[in-house]
Amino acid sequence: MINSVGRDIPDKVLQETGKKVFQGAYARHDEVYQKAAPKVRGVVDPKEDKILPSITEALKKCEIKDGMTLSFHHHFREGDYVVNMVMEEVHKMGIKDITICASSMGKAHDPILPMIEDGTVVGIQSSGVRGKIGWAISTGKLKNYAVMRSHGGRVRAIEEGDVHIDIAFIGAPTCDKYGNMRATGGKSDCGVLSYAYVDAQYADRVVAVTDCLVPYPNLPASISQVNVDYVVVVDEIGNPAKIATGAAKPTRDVRRLMMAEYCTQFVINTPYFKDGFSYQTGVGGASIASTISLGKIMKERGIKMGLGLGGIAGPLCQLLEDGLIEKLVDTQDFDLKAIESIKANPNHFEITASEYANPMNKGAYVNQLDFVILASLEVDVNFNCNVVVGSDGMVTGAQGGHPDTSAGAKCTIVIVPLLQGRIPAICTNVTTVTTPGETVDVVITDYGIAINPRRQDLIDIMKDVKLPFKTMEELRDIAYSIAGEPDPVEFGERVVGIIESRDGTVIDVVREIKQFEM
Amino acid sequence: MINSVGRDIPDKVLQETGKKVFQGAYARHDEVYQKAAPKVRGVVDPKEDKILPSITEALKKCEIKDGMTLSFHHHFREGDYVVNMVMEEVHKMGIKDITICASSMGKAHDPILPMIEDGTVVGIQSSGVRGKIGWAISTGKLKNYAVMRSHGGRVRAIEEGDVHIDIAFIGAPTCDKYGNMRATGGKSDCGVLSYAYVDAQYADRVVAVTDCLVPYPNLPASISQVNVDYVVVVDEIGNPAKIATGAAKPTRDVRRLMMAEYCTQFVINTPYFKDGFSYQTGVGGASIASTISLGKIMKERGIKMGLGLGGIAGPLCQLLEDGLIEKLVDTQDFDLKAIESIKANPNHFEITASEYANPMNKGAYVNQLDFVILASLEVDVNFNCNVVVGSDGMVTGAQGGHPDTSAGAKCTIVIVPLLQGRIPAICTNVTTVTTPGETVDVVITDYGIAINPRRQDLIDIMKDVKLPFKTMEELRDIAYSIAGEPDPVEFGERVVGIIESRDGTVIDVVREIKQFEM
Repeated sequence: MINSVGRDIPDKVLQETGKKVFQGAYARHDEVYQKAAPKVRGVVDPKEDKILPSITEALKKCEIKDGMTLSFHHHFREGDYVVNMVMEEVHKMGIKDITICASSMGKAHDPILPMIEDGTVVGIQSSGVRGKIGWAISTGKLKNYAVMRSHGGRVRAIEEGDVHIDIAFIGAPTCDKYGNMRATGGKSDCGVLSYAYVDAQYADRVVAVTDCLVPYPNLPASISQVNVDYVVVVDEIGNPAKIATGAAKPTRDVRRLMMAEYCTQFVINTPYFKDGFSYQTGVGGASIASTISLGKIMKERGIKMGLGLGGIAGPLCQLLEDGLIEKLVDTQDFDLKAIESIKANPNHFEITASEYANPMNKGAYVNQLDFVILASLEVDVNFNCNVVVGSDGMVTGAQGGHPDTSAGAKCTIVIVPLLQGRIPAICTNVTTVTTPGETVDVVITDYGIAINPRRQDLIDIMKDVKLPFKTMEELRDIAYSIAGEPDPVEFGERVVGIIESRDGTVIDVVREIKQFEM
Repeated sequence: MINSVGRDIPDKVLQETGKKVFQGAYARHDEVYQKAAPKVRGVVDPKEDKILPSITEALKKCEIKDGMTLSFHHHFREGDYVVNMVMEEVHKMGIKDITICASSMGKAHDPILPMIEDGTVVGIQSSGVRGKIGWAISTGKLKNYAVMRSHGGRVRAIEEGDVHIDIAFIGAPTCDKYGNMRATGGKSDCGVLSYAYVDAQYADRVVAVTDCLVPYPNLPASISQVNVDYVVVVDEIGNPAKIATGAAKPTRDVRRLMMAEYCTQFVINTPYFKDGFSYQTGVGGASIASTISLGKIMKERGIKMGLGLGGIAGPLCQLLEDGLIEKLVDTQDFDLKAIESIKANPNHFEITASEYANPMNKGAYVNQLDFVILASLEVDVNFNCNVVVGSDGMVTGAQGGHPDTSAGAKCTIVIVPLLQGRIPAICTNVTTVTTPGETVDVVITDYGIAINPRRQDLIDIMKDVKLPFKTMEELRDIAYSIAGEPDPVEFGERVVGIIESRDGTVIDVVREIKQFEM
């Protein structure tokens, strides 16, 4: 069945999953649904002790069995030890048919590969994957469909009951004896625990895993004791060096600096650029450069940002420190400066992933964005973006907050170099649609800027602005004239992954690639 | 059917309500249940505006209809305007058969009486009531059973689905355009919004009512935008003079001071009185005096309180300021000093009512209490307490956190003068059981102290402590010898109210009194 971005979603997939095809980014607005809810074990007796001696003991207490869904968060990023630590015990216990539902996964989780091959793990649900798990999915090693969701989409899926978590394992930089978890203060600081909040609320059983037990009560808690069954203290939950990378260095790449400058000029010429505006950006070189140059203009013109949102990196924290931002609202910290900022700055706040981006709650923060500055692996002439599947067909990226912020912001800008290496990033059809073009307003490349024809208002506003405006078709033609039109990836017929739209419908599927050997 | 505190609960009540009889304070420990969940209307479209021009408009948008349950919080205490404001509009619209589910109600809500009489309101569910609503219940004016729950029990009832809230109206001292509510910063500061959190989570529709709209985002929010459908700005949500009373003055009543001294001596002679101990107290004169004298001893001995919990009044805030308490954890503010403290002191934290006291979550704060110091209207020889029904049979009090803290604390102390006016407070059988005696460890009167025989450990510890220990029977006999044994209240047969135990079972019922005229 063809969906509203023109992708053919096999009926077999729809039948097997019960999902519907994508019908537009706002199709489910105003829809009323019944929320899901967990089974909870009441702790009436004050004498009960929540501390258990090991992960194995926790798995037993949680009555682990074949076919369960276990969940994890990715705030430790490439420094995460928790997924592997838990899954090794699951593996040793001989448990099979596990689905891992993580807020995201990366190369840190390469050790899961043999567990996919031997049937311990049969399902992966994640914002995205990289490394060996991506390879396993793309080459058909995973028994069930991999499901890729945006950060907001994951919360929605859990809150709507599309996925039910049997046991959540939540790595906590600090935790007390009764399960109050914080993201700061231990040896594995990660700033916030935003993605894990929904797991704590909706999983039947919740286990806190910490390497730093602190006196009761550990307040203010990101995750509260009332949602936690057990606490396990281990030696190390993560590698601090890989949890927080150092401060992002400003790019010196001339091409990126040029795109950043285009972006800044575009932003300041919109009517949304005024005192109190709201803003989110990724951590790509051009985005960071754009934030820095925007900061200079804000200072010159006496314009303050009301709200800086999202995954937070150093440059936004610097603007907060400089008094150019009223409030930073945070779901993920990308570097040390961001982690230090949320500890020290009273105007830097943690929110949950639902608050950030869930499309089916009563209004997420992304809905209040004026600007979001994003990157993409590919963008096509219909402004559809692909941030999950490489141009070689391999799963290698993550939806993250891309479709969420894109749908929410008044002005969604995607910065992408015309060519990624020798491969055109602007193309006729993206390999996989992960963010629908209807939510993308502007594409900025090093060869020119395209405004989505749906945004005639922006086209009118920009008509006297001196920026190199072009159509997407013109940009695509330049890309193809330089690098040639790429041959389509040779996919097999078998569907191995589902790209779920943030509202739970199927926006695209990922098919097996057969040629590739690791 | 006779329950475990010896009260005969009519089968008719059990059949009509589906409730079970009370079987002991910890009978439901470790029980697994399916949580309830609301119906939610997804706000995908970022253009949607949540601000509505009036309460009437909000009622229409929320599709108010006969038979619905509306909820409210009581953080504005006797200064609350919200309940009456909403119910007047409901009344004008001609809606009938409404159940009010409030965290508590008081004399401020006397204007509801005619709505009970004309069938607009048929049900009251509350921690307690005073004034005309209490009279209406006790004289059989309310169509359905009034249900009285503890603060923890109310959360449990909502989370377990015993009561489903159709529309929650949440008065907010400050609120932004998207529904983020805070308890501080406006003209009706109430310190915290702890009791309203569960309403926001579990009601199908949630309306923020504020008299102070602030810039977006209103952070840190007590209630988040993601749970709020609409925002209504009104002139005044409360009377500040009645929301926060002035600082409680230390009592000069010799009898109260003596009981306070007994209490302090008892506390410091238990093994729980050591560095890091946790403590909660009410706002009665003796409790306050006891806190003050305890503070002096803490200072002398270099002992710090780790956790001060509960409804918070000035004296605990003073100990926090003096460095004698590590952390104050707050569900309700009784005076201006407490409200100022939570605004200014970084070690004074707001928690939700579920975190405070819900017996069926995964472990509430009350479970971590070493001491709770409580009052009571009556205590009987089995240590059962009554804090809801006057000795005249009239509903005139509230469960509050009494049964919750009593069940949670390692050492539950009830301070009660032997006689309340000319009426014995220590008696053979309390008029109504609201807190089961098995959870009450010590009763302190001006005529002596009784330790619950279940606590042989405490009896042993106190055997050389010079305090006037007596049995409850001895205390009762003294009371009766002074004031005479009171005649039992003449109740009719009809049950008008249910005293629900915190776990949802029926611990007692309230029967109609026929003689009384207002």
